[in-house]
Amino acid sequence: MSATVHPIGGAARVPSLDPMIQLVAADLNHVNAVILARMQSDVALIPELAGHLIAGGGKRMRPMLTLACARLLDYQGSRHHKLAAAVEFIHTATLLHDDVVDGSGLRRGKRTANIIWGNPASVLVGDFLFSRSFELMVEDGSLKVLRILSRASSVIAEGEVDQLTAQRRVETGEDHYLEIISAKTAALFAAACRIAAVVAEREEPVERALDSYGRNLGIAFQLIDDAIDYASDAQTMGKGVGDDFRDGKPTLPVILAYARGSEADRAFWRAAMAGDRASDADLADAILRLRDTGALDDTFERARLYGQRAIDALGPFPAGRAKAALVEAVEFAISRAY
Amino acid sequence: MSATVHPIGGAARVPSLDPMIQLVAADLNHVNAVILARMQSDVALIPELAGHLIAGGGKRMRPMLTLACARLLDYQGSRHHKLAAAVEFIHTATLLHDDVVDGSGLRRGKRTANIIWGNPASVLVGDFLFSRSFELMVEDGSLKVLRILSRASSVIAEGEVDQLTAQRRVETGEDHYLEIISAKTAALFAAACRIAAVVAEREEPVERALDSYGRNLGIAFQLIDDAIDYASDAQTMGKGVGDDFRDGKPTLPVILAYARGSEADRAFWRAAMAGDRASDADLADAILRLRDTGALDDTFERARLYGQRAIDALGPFPAGRAKAALVEAVEFAISRAY
Repeated sequence: MSATVHPIGGAARVPSLDPMIQLVAADLNHVNAVILARMQSDVALIPELAGHLIAGGGKRMRPMLTLACARLLDYQGSRHHKLAAAVEFIHTATLLHDDVVDGSGLRRGKRTANIIWGNPASVLVGDFLFSRSFELMVEDGSLKVLRILSRASSVIAEGEVDQLTAQRRVETGEDHYLEIISAKTAALFAAACRIAAVVAEREEPVERALDSYGRNLGIAFQLIDDAIDYASDAQTMGKGVGDDFRDGKPTLPVILAYARGSEADRAFWRAAMAGDRASDADLADAILRLRDTGALDDTFERARLYGQRAIDALGPFPAGRAKAALVEAVEFAISRAY
Repeated sequence: MSATVHPIGGAARVPSLDPMIQLVAADLNHVNAVILARMQSDVALIPELAGHLIAGGGKRMRPMLTLACARLLDYQGSRHHKLAAAVEFIHTATLLHDDVVDGSGLRRGKRTANIIWGNPASVLVGDFLFSRSFELMVEDGSLKVLRILSRASSVIAEGEVDQLTAQRRVETGEDHYLEIISAKTAALFAAACRIAAVVAEREEPVERALDSYGRNLGIAFQLIDDAIDYASDAQTMGKGVGDDFRDGKPTLPVILAYARGSEADRAFWRAAMAGDRASDADLADAILRLRDTGALDDTFERARLYGQRAIDALGPFPAGRAKAALVEAVEFAISRAY
């Protein structure tokens, strides 16, 4: 099965984020201006540290989704600039805290802020960006947007704690794992899309459709990330390959391989998730076992399923440049591997 | 000079929080019920960790201020229960993150959450409580309250980063230090008081007066805390004595002693703040130097000055049980030493 669902523009074409990037380019300049202006502070370490991550090659995936969904709804105002910046601030805050929680040293191919400035600064600047995101929402003044994004923020934190609890527990089930990534990753994708319907003052079913698009795209996105951690090299990922393996995170590939494996496989995964098999040779061994049990293929397959759901959620919307860009963003997300 | 400003009920009486506690007792039960209900989560670690700190003997100083200020304004509704809980959640989130940032092991005489559950859990549960506080504010629905508390949250984070930057820098000046504590401590005291005027739908000057009361009380409170770190034992403090000294935090006593000291004093403080003098003998030495230069006495004196400002800010309000309780809360705050 091809990674491309509903091919657009010929079967040979590789899906890309370019149509979405072009669609929102002018809006994204406004968003970037808000981001730069609002990460400033008289306390110099704040813009220094925040700028390292914010200017550091992120795709701006979540704010682009807010902007693209607003285009899909033919929204003509500019409220979404501030709100897209708020979404990016929430995302940046969670990245800063995630890197502290995981003790990560590399993100997007660069040294992480916690390595350069230390964990305390990363925790506190994350708190600043998170607070600043609420200030931006308050300036916009929509209680509905505030409700959606404060709820998403709680759910993200719950998902992160849930994942921390599941760490090193190989017996984490597929359903539980999907709950974790729905919370820690997909909730913000969903909210980023949903708030476009709020600013465009569209009815509840439109909100729900965009929420569903974002949520399913977010799950697909995370599943592919999880698979790539075992299927790619550090350059493609922009972070260290095998990070999840060494951190003992039971992501879907491991959960499937554990469920399907022999007694020897299971013993291997128990030892690996417990941290007793963390060498490069063990990682190579793990990848072989993931391939042998079809766990990687099936993780990609499930990502494609969620991707298809995201695309189907756009069904009710009229064809056009925005819809095509949103569809291709999904195809891009699920084609990032191999 | 006595620590008691404008003595009430006889000069011999020791100021206490009891009048405020009695004033708001019924309201505080409602707030505690909101706190308990809203720190719940299906992710068991969240209420477990949050409960350790929230149930762990905190004075509920900030939510009590919201409640007492509402009584001062004769507010008859119940909106302030949710908002006082939101204030306490913000405070709890910052405590969890502070203990990670400082690597603290003891708070209120108990082991800190980061020692029991680890830094990652403390960071993430802090994020959860912070998000939850915004959910509570959104449920209340006042954009003005949201503006006040989101702004306070940004300012707190800025103050914390500023303090981190100042750490181990003995040349931090008194003005800079007052900026730091105005942000990291007094901003939430000010906001906790100010929102009472918003829910009571009182005019801007009332908001400003309560803001001023809270801000000055917060500064006084922090200055006394800073002095007690050198003047008391672990039992009185509920945290380890000399923590600031060993962390190389240039609090006001150190700043004054450094400014006034001999060359030998200065050399001592430079070494101490750099972490090269951190033994119990060094701490005893530090306390002697603080006493000899009058730095501790003058820190208490400054605290009394801010305390007096807080009391004066209440001038326009009618005498009565609420005002008396708020005044005595200040007297209590500045009498906590020796």
